[in-house]
Amino acid sequence: MTGLDVAELARGVRGGERRALARAITLVESRRADHRAEAGDLLDALAGTGRQALRIGLSGTPGVGKSTFIEAFGMMLTGQGLRVAVLAVDPSSARSGGSILGDKTRMDRLARDPRAFIRPSPSQAQLGGVARRSREAVTLCEAAGYDVVLIETVGVGQSETLVAGMADLFVLLLAPGGGDELQGVKRGIMEIADLILVNKADGDLKPAALRTVADYAGALRLLRKRVQDPDGFPKALPVSALEEAGLAAAWSEMKALADWRRANGHFARVRAEQARAWFEDEVRQGLLARLERDAGLRARMAALGDAVEAGRAAPSRAAAEVLAALEAAQG
Amino acid sequence: MTGLDVAELARGVRGGERRALARAITLVESRRADHRAEAGDLLDALAGTGRQALRIGLSGTPGVGKSTFIEAFGMMLTGQGLRVAVLAVDPSSARSGGSILGDKTRMDRLARDPRAFIRPSPSQAQLGGVARRSREAVTLCEAAGYDVVLIETVGVGQSETLVAGMADLFVLLLAPGGGDELQGVKRGIMEIADLILVNKADGDLKPAALRTVADYAGALRLLRKRVQDPDGFPKALPVSALEEAGLAAAWSEMKALADWRRANGHFARVRAEQARAWFEDEVRQGLLARLERDAGLRARMAALGDAVEAGRAAPSRAAAEVLAALEAAQG
Repeated sequence: MTGLDVAELARGVRGGERRALARAITLVESRRADHRAEAGDLLDALAGTGRQALRIGLSGTPGVGKSTFIEAFGMMLTGQGLRVAVLAVDPSSARSGGSILGDKTRMDRLARDPRAFIRPSPSQAQLGGVARRSREAVTLCEAAGYDVVLIETVGVGQSETLVAGMADLFVLLLAPGGGDELQGVKRGIMEIADLILVNKADGDLKPAALRTVADYAGALRLLRKRVQDPDGFPKALPVSALEEAGLAAAWSEMKALADWRRANGHFARVRAEQARAWFEDEVRQGLLARLERDAGLRARMAALGDAVEAGRAAPSRAAAEVLAALEAAQG
Repeated sequence: MTGLDVAELARGVRGGERRALARAITLVESRRADHRAEAGDLLDALAGTGRQALRIGLSGTPGVGKSTFIEAFGMMLTGQGLRVAVLAVDPSSARSGGSILGDKTRMDRLARDPRAFIRPSPSQAQLGGVARRSREAVTLCEAAGYDVVLIETVGVGQSETLVAGMADLFVLLLAPGGGDELQGVKRGIMEIADLILVNKADGDLKPAALRTVADYAGALRLLRKRVQDPDGFPKALPVSALEEAGLAAAWSEMKALADWRRANGHFARVRAEQARAWFEDEVRQGLLARLERDAGLRARMAALGDAVEAGRAAPSRAAAEVLAALEAAQG
């Protein structure tokens, strides 16, 4: 992007041009030092628009009908005149059929909607890089005037925590299950879900979906109430993306929760805390990046890690060795 | 500890002397540089004893009867000829009535038992420091020939994750609850619990305890099976520390789970992974400690964090500023 006109790009993003937004996200995804500098300038130029989207984190394992849901839910929102951006956060470089957004064509109605913007996850991303890129992409979508930013994740490893750290609400999408271990729900996710939506509440699966809703509603009641929750939250609800049923009810719950949190100061507080956490995380990541930058040090870390794992070295001693080498190198 | 004879202390620990073990733990708790060096020598001297305890993490909020349970459970184990060490992990310096082990006298029978060793949590500890101290204390107890090391935590913040990272099994102790939000169970804990014990299954509370067991058994069935779990785990069981009922059954489940994991290679694998994670964590903590060591940098971090939280600075820009200052300081 030699000769990039950052001011012009910022104008395009602020004007809501999808092509400018796409270019801007490509810029923040780049790891090149000159691109990083331009990305910083761009974000500075876009600061202070005063625009605020509702940022909704959405997680669901493959097979729950996530792409169908996002399309139906997104179309409902654009039908109300709202502008909707969909971002994927997928730290796995393999992308083994999990992320729907590797394949935009599976949401072709929404992709063609002028009020919608869909952006797949960049490939070969590491968790640290994904975090920064995603936070900045959310900021860009917000500056571009989108009303709702859906941040989709496939529900593997730590990606939910990551997404929860940049979302105002967190929605977990499930399929009707036998109530047993079929769902493969990560245990920690109950910690962060504001709304559990059981999809496929249609046809033969409807009774099973309603049972699953009741099971999860029961499980949610066992958990401690969070300060940022009004009575009754987190909730479990049935939806049918196929029949487009329950979507308005789900949206209404999301708005009610967001409104309650705004009225009670939790919305702004959580965003401020997220910003501070983002700052502190970037400092830590920047420091730890030194371990990655130096190939010799990296090799030493790996060898010592193997020795520790095999029981040939004590963890503390091995760590002290690495730190001493680091001090010496920088001394 | 000027003039400390590390070899003699190591002999005492290896000989199972409780006073030597207590002194050794005091040494690893110290943050003084000379003590850290001696602690390293001591751990080196104690490496290769080949002794392995069963490390059991135990969490429970105040009011569940944790001290009564630990005493009854510990006495049952020492009654079988086993040697039991109890360590507290409590990152909160306030210790607001949570940690039973601030008050050894509440477990005075076990404290007087020659086969038992009880060690309260050090005061004014930070999470990073608590992690290292606790891992090293567990290692010392193991070298001293204890058969079971109970690592107790009060269940606040991240302490469960910390304890799970140094335990072979994780037990959650609950009181009978109305099934609602009374328990104050941290949501993430279901992720790591191997066994949920519902205490106070005696007298008038027995029916409620059995209902709570059924509720949690149901909730556990909704969660994904973990690779390190045989069929039927994680389990929920009733116990009565007061009537000393259900303790043998709980111990039998713990042994069965540990045996299964040993037979299937998970026990050794998890320990090796824990050791590697410990090493990597120490390197990261050592690097991040630089942010703490430099008072000027610390003040700058706090001021920039405030600015970010108030919306006066962008997180990435603020982070870049700190990192640049750090590079400049180190030349």
